[in-house]
Amino acid sequence: MNIFETLESEVRSYCRGWPTTFDKATGSLLYDETGKEYLDFFAGAGSLNYGHNNPLLKRAVIDYMLADGITHSLDMHTAAKRDLLESFADIVLKPRNLDYKVMFPGPAGANAVEAALKLARKVTGREAIINFTNAFHGMTLGALSVTGNSMKRSGAGIPLVHATPMPYDNYFDGQTPDFLFFERLLADSGSGLNEPAAVIVETVQGEGGINAARAEWLRGLADLCQRNGILLIVDDVQMGCGRTGPFFSFEIAGIQPDIVCLSKSIGGYGLPLALTLLKPELDVWEPGEHNGTFRGINPAFVAATEALKVYWQDDKLEKSTLAKGEQVGRALTGLVESYPDVQMRAKGRGLARGLQFADAELADQVCKNAFEAGLLMETSGPDGEVVKLMPPLTISDDELEAGLSILAASVKGVLA
Amino acid sequence: MNIFETLESEVRSYCRGWPTTFDKATGSLLYDETGKEYLDFFAGAGSLNYGHNNPLLKRAVIDYMLADGITHSLDMHTAAKRDLLESFADIVLKPRNLDYKVMFPGPAGANAVEAALKLARKVTGREAIINFTNAFHGMTLGALSVTGNSMKRSGAGIPLVHATPMPYDNYFDGQTPDFLFFERLLADSGSGLNEPAAVIVETVQGEGGINAARAEWLRGLADLCQRNGILLIVDDVQMGCGRTGPFFSFEIAGIQPDIVCLSKSIGGYGLPLALTLLKPELDVWEPGEHNGTFRGINPAFVAATEALKVYWQDDKLEKSTLAKGEQVGRALTGLVESYPDVQMRAKGRGLARGLQFADAELADQVCKNAFEAGLLMETSGPDGEVVKLMPPLTISDDELEAGLSILAASVKGVLA
Amino acid sequence: MNIFETLESEVRSYCRGWPTTFDKATGSLLYDETGKEYLDFFAGAGSLNYGHNNPLLKRAVIDYMLADGITHSLDMHTAAKRDLLESFADIVLKPRNLDYKVMFPGPAGANAVEAALKLARKVTGREAIINFTNAFHGMTLGALSVTGNSMKRSGAGIPLVHATPMPYDNYFDGQTPDFLFFERLLADSGSGLNEPAAVIVETVQGEGGINAARAEWLRGLADLCQRNGILLIVDDVQMGCGRTGPFFSFEIAGIQPDIVCLSKSIGGYGLPLALTLLKPELDVWEPGEHNGTFRGINPAFVAATEALKVYWQDDKLEKSTLAKGEQVGRALTGLVESYPDVQMRAKGRGLARGLQFADAELADQVCKNAFEAGLLMETSGPDGEVVKLMPPLTISDDELEAGLSILAASVKGVLA
Amino acid sequence: MNIFETLESEVRSYCRGWPTTFDKATGSLLYDETGKEYLDFFAGAGSLNYGHNNPLLKRAVIDYMLADGITHSLDMHTAAKRDLLESFADIVLKPRNLDYKVMFPGPAGANAVEAALKLARKVTGREAIINFTNAFHGMTLGALSVTGNSMKRSGAGIPLVHATPMPYDNYFDGQTPDFLFFERLLADSGSGLNEPAAVIVETVQGEGGINAARAEWLRGLADLCQRNGILLIVDDVQMGCGRTGPFFSFEIAGIQPDIVCLSKSIGGYGLPLALTLLKPELDVWEPGEHNGTFRGINPAFVAATEALKVYWQDDKLEKSTLAKGEQVGRALTGLVESYPDVQMRAKGRGLARGLQFADAELADQVCKNAFEAGLLMETSGPDGEVVKLMPPLTISDDELEAGLSILAASVKGVLA
Repeated sequence: MNIFETLESEVRSYCRGWPTTFDKATGSLLYDETGKEYLDFFAGAGSLNYGHNNPLLKRAVIDYMLADGITHSLDMHTAAKRDLLESFADIVLKPRNLDYKVMFPGPAGANAVEAALKLARKVTGREAIINFTNAFHGMTLGALSVTGNSMKRSGAGIPLVHATPMPYDNYFDGQTPDFLFFERLLADSGSGLNEPAAVIVETVQGEGGINAARAEWLRGLADLCQRNGILLIVDDVQMGCGRTGPFFSFEIAGIQPDIVCLSKSIGGYGLPLALTLLKPELDVWEPGEHNGTFRGINPAFVAATEALKVYWQDDKLEKSTLAKGEQVGRALTGLVESYPDVQMRAKGRGLARGLQFADAELADQVCKNAFEAGLLMETSGPDGEVVKLMPPLTISDDELEAGLSILAASVKGVLA
Repeated sequence: MNIFETLESEVRSYCRGWPTTFDKATGSLLYDETGKEYLDFFAGAGSLNYGHNNPLLKRAVIDYMLADGITHSLDMHTAAKRDLLESFADIVLKPRNLDYKVMFPGPAGANAVEAALKLARKVTGREAIINFTNAFHGMTLGALSVTGNSMKRSGAGIPLVHATPMPYDNYFDGQTPDFLFFERLLADSGSGLNEPAAVIVETVQGEGGINAARAEWLRGLADLCQRNGILLIVDDVQMGCGRTGPFFSFEIAGIQPDIVCLSKSIGGYGLPLALTLLKPELDVWEPGEHNGTFRGINPAFVAATEALKVYWQDDKLEKSTLAKGEQVGRALTGLVESYPDVQMRAKGRGLARGLQFADAELADQVCKNAFEAGLLMETSGPDGEVVKLMPPLTISDDELEAGLSILAASVKGVLA
Repeated sequence: MNIFETLESEVRSYCRGWPTTFDKATGSLLYDETGKEYLDFFAGAGSLNYGHNNPLLKRAVIDYMLADGITHSLDMHTAAKRDLLESFADIVLKPRNLDYKVMFPGPAGANAVEAALKLARKVTGREAIINFTNAFHGMTLGALSVTGNSMKRSGAGIPLVHATPMPYDNYFDGQTPDFLFFERLLADSGSGLNEPAAVIVETVQGEGGINAARAEWLRGLADLCQRNGILLIVDDVQMGCGRTGPFFSFEIAGIQPDIVCLSKSIGGYGLPLALTLLKPELDVWEPGEHNGTFRGINPAFVAATEALKVYWQDDKLEKSTLAKGEQVGRALTGLVESYPDVQMRAKGRGLARGLQFADAELADQVCKNAFEAGLLMETSGPDGEVVKLMPPLTISDDELEAGLSILAASVKGVLA
Repeated sequence: MNIFETLESEVRSYCRGWPTTFDKATGSLLYDETGKEYLDFFAGAGSLNYGHNNPLLKRAVIDYMLADGITHSLDMHTAAKRDLLESFADIVLKPRNLDYKVMFPGPAGANAVEAALKLARKVTGREAIINFTNAFHGMTLGALSVTGNSMKRSGAGIPLVHATPMPYDNYFDGQTPDFLFFERLLADSGSGLNEPAAVIVETVQGEGGINAARAEWLRGLADLCQRNGILLIVDDVQMGCGRTGPFFSFEIAGIQPDIVCLSKSIGGYGLPLALTLLKPELDVWEPGEHNGTFRGINPAFVAATEALKVYWQDDKLEKSTLAKGEQVGRALTGLVESYPDVQMRAKGRGLARGLQFADAELADQVCKNAFEAGLLMETSGPDGEVVKLMPPLTISDDELEAGLSILAASVKGVLA
């Protein structure tokens, strides 16, 4: 038994599917201690959109550290934070005509969600939140209450209340009009639905099984919220920062959510960072009403700023992501068509892609085969029935092809 | 208006008390953009026990980064994590005869608390938690529910339930026996107290006003918990890692809590890291039942390991912390005695010290004066009535004396 | 200002729609202090199925009182209670092959519901309850939490949680398959729906607007519950005791709910009485775990027993109720057809009937006109858009015709 | 097995301690089916202050019924209700200079409590309630949440939250100043106590073990509430209507609670009736925001009115209750003194009296012996350690002496 087995809690999970010890990483590649190389179609669950140890970002971080730039600063003003705020305003917000204030809610996506829910409740004076089937928003109690997975919910140890799930786009395979149930409950004063403070939504559900909502559905949701005085929170923790192509995943719908949650790749280098964006008129916080120790990790500010400057001053990354996404999509569709007798489905948008099996066992086995062959992919979906493909956006064409080949072989190994 | 005022949310707070823009930092010193130097009696709210940009830790982190050691790994096995686990076992747990399993609950202290509360509820099948007056455990909903501050609680936007506050040590200035109310409620089946899953406690309340519980009280609490089948959680996020002298703040009481929360200085360098320690028999988690994206920040693992190796292989740091703590304590007592007509009180243990004023305005003004004179201190306590002194443990004697001189002058400026 | 206006709380409501002072009553007639006669199409909101001051029941109650039969007995054994239990077993349960234990949960329907919810949670170890849109189950906190009306819910003063509303039969006018949403949420482990302890349902929603669920839908619901290990609670407080024809309103569906709530007309004479029926295997109560002062009102037991003996030893009442119900139904359909340009709809089953207007103002005005003309009817439905017709089951044909004539005239007065 | 055992739920309890079937009752006497006579020191748990089947009240009720006075009227205006309101104003409120509006919240004490809690929350906009150790307020979810008994609480099946118990008068046997903990928690903004909407209190805790709060403590509580903007609710369901001497039990303290709950003996004859009294400025209810089917039981109105007229137009009943109470008190003290080696304690006020044993088994056995000898008494207190004596206020001196003799013999039988 190694020290992981003897000392680390049973709660650990990724290490069970990928039973090796990783040591080094660069770009789209990881290496374990034996030197074996792995192609990364996982990307830190969306935290490594710019690849492992991206050399440009690494340089900036190391330079900052060598110059003894302040590392830890809570919410004090720092030069590195100012640079980030200015870059975020100039490179992200202004070109998109988005008017948001920026809150640093803590180091992780769950903090961004917790702050968003608190603020929505404070602003509206209501407690209820609408979430969606198969949503994933985090593990802290507030974030967990709007998360769908029953195993994770049962970990709360208390009844998770105040949230009501509504059907996500296409939950009934197009059988019913969009928002049929939601609209009816809201319109009916006798429905028993507590008046919602906010709706929280992912535009593409990553953990939920790479379910991509249509732009039209997102627009319908934004419209429904506005008509009913409900705040719209987009949790862009996993799908933001270019994962689906544009910087914000909701750009395809032309909507402006009231609150946006960012984390994962916003820090650029895999260092913890999260932002909660809020419309200026919602900024009713008292100073210090929400706080936290790790809200000012300046190396992450530096990496974040550099990432914005390198990747978001033009539309190259967005275009390449869309192109690579199409490439992956075609490969998945090809796989589906290769096995006409097997129930499979290609899903996703941009570089958030999934291959869904009717039988979750098959998805699991595909990932196991891929791991053996040097490709990291995880499953997602309520039963783990979806093979999830989320390579770094900076992956090379050759690496992408190589990964897709391993995927094809892994599927073949399972189905043949 | 600068970009902080135009773009950052009103929720920001530390920057209001310290209105400058910091740029660089090293050891116990910070520098703002104008080059002005500040002595640090704040230490990142306890995250910088080893000082800013500690050169030994910096070297280790930068070397790791230069070698392309994997940065972000969730809960995969990595070499850096193994090193940390081994060092933690060898340097911290074994010499203290402590038998814990280690859980990586997320990047921040609130994650360690959320995981602890979840686990206590899961293990016991009960929902209720006992917290203490003036407790501070974090801002996520679970952690906030066991936090005392009414302003922060009101930010929740929903009723915070499932927790009942009990009087902390000395809450009634010795008028009543310890645990009088708590014991009576537990013994009385008609008391209406929901049977608690756990008690969560800080041995010294940092945010609550540097209230230091006596070892005897802590032993009484541990005994009460054991007799009643209640789990004891020590939140050592701020007071652990040597802040009060020994590595764990509860060592002075000779108790072994069921669950221990660590964060802040465990990462050594100010990078986000948190641990939840649990007795092996409590490790009933399902794999993945609690998870999170930022549970594997390897540069923090590296810095944490290095900090353990540098500072905790012998008892030098513990002894020097106790000695410096005494020095601060004497200075504070001297101040109290210098102003016999002013209600003041010296508080604390180790290098967690406080100077309490009857009038919170005075405490605030002392900190303002100190800032002007180049010393960073924050207030704590329910009304901000306590000037809080938490320098890095690595502060030099000269720096400590210099800071205490500024403190004395700041107090004089307010009271004279 | 009279004493009602000066001394009674503003919460009073029926007296506002019927602004007179009632004095005497008999059968289907009420009289106010001026001697004006009113036909009763309200029947104490379903508590007076056998009419006001029914002479047979009155005789039994007065005889009992004159003989100094014990009046108030909590849950002590009394002869009157034995008679009721025996009659209930012999006349109600056995002929219908229903195997229930009988619990006396308190004096009112809300007590029957509170006890049912408690028991379902205790048996299953789950907290969540599924209720239906436009449900009404009572005003105590437990019952209110499963009630739909938003005005009444807001009276709770705390967030009402633990219940999730599902669409009642025909909520989408047949657009969607029955239980489409409910089944999908249950089948999907990632839906975020907390596993329900029970479903609570009215077979005809009285307060909700006289919505009558189809037998087929009720069977589907019973089947869904059984397949998913969810207890089925039928709240027959208003629709039981023959209101829709058979003694239990669910008999038309051939189902056996796990728990049944009875009150209102079970006492026969308008005296408070409630029963919770539970399948024997669910009888896991500790003695005294649920109690209450008014669980043994023996005059109500006597009236209840007499009512069972007089009205339920044969099927005459059931048949006459169905026949009169048809008569009312035809009258309503006739009214709808008389005004082809007005959106109206005839609803209901047995002698629970409604006339729904698109414009709630019209329904209100119809009831006002009827009151002027000597007919008592209330409105129901989320906006009060349904004129509700619930005469005593014992109403004579002439009285029924007279009432329907007033209704027709009242409608005409509004629409003409 | 009789029908009670085969058909009635296991939840039944009083019948277990008094295993016979009662049939008739009059005054302070009950008779079982065999004709055996029982003296009643239980009085319907306080519902029969005027005795069983009080002939004056019986006459009034039967006359009303024979005249076909309306029986069931919800909250319509009726002549009988007007009589009650006028009598209540003239006989109860005005002579005591009490200014309350009267609400009919439903048939039972729990309804009065539910309405009080709702109103307090609505008026203050807060959710939290302070209750006291060993409180009993009812079995519906709202009332149960402020009730202390752990067995009854566990019946809820959901966590009972929103209420925090404070120590009742003398909870620490005089060791601590009154309200030490409560005052401190309120004064400390960091205490973690949610700001209370209201305090709910019984002046003498009946179910809690006949704990009588001192007038001074009640005044202190009223003062604390007023200083802190907390509403004071007195639950006078069991101790009102003269049980402790004056009509309202709080009269001895000279306080005017914001809300008062009445039920049990307010109906006079054992018929269900409850009132919630509220200060006029609190009457912010929307019409119908709280309702219920059994709010207009006119026979109970008639009996209630008659009881007020017969017993409360002068101070005879109050004086005789106090005198009889002293008589019982002396008897209990005598018993305590007779057994100097046994830990016993005489408790109570007026005709709410208790004899507390250190060993609950003894109390139980005393009641069993008394039952055998023809005296009904129940135990109360968290462990059933108190023999509870609550005879009708109208009991004759001879009956009282006879009962006390049986009590003495029963105690002797247990202790000798």
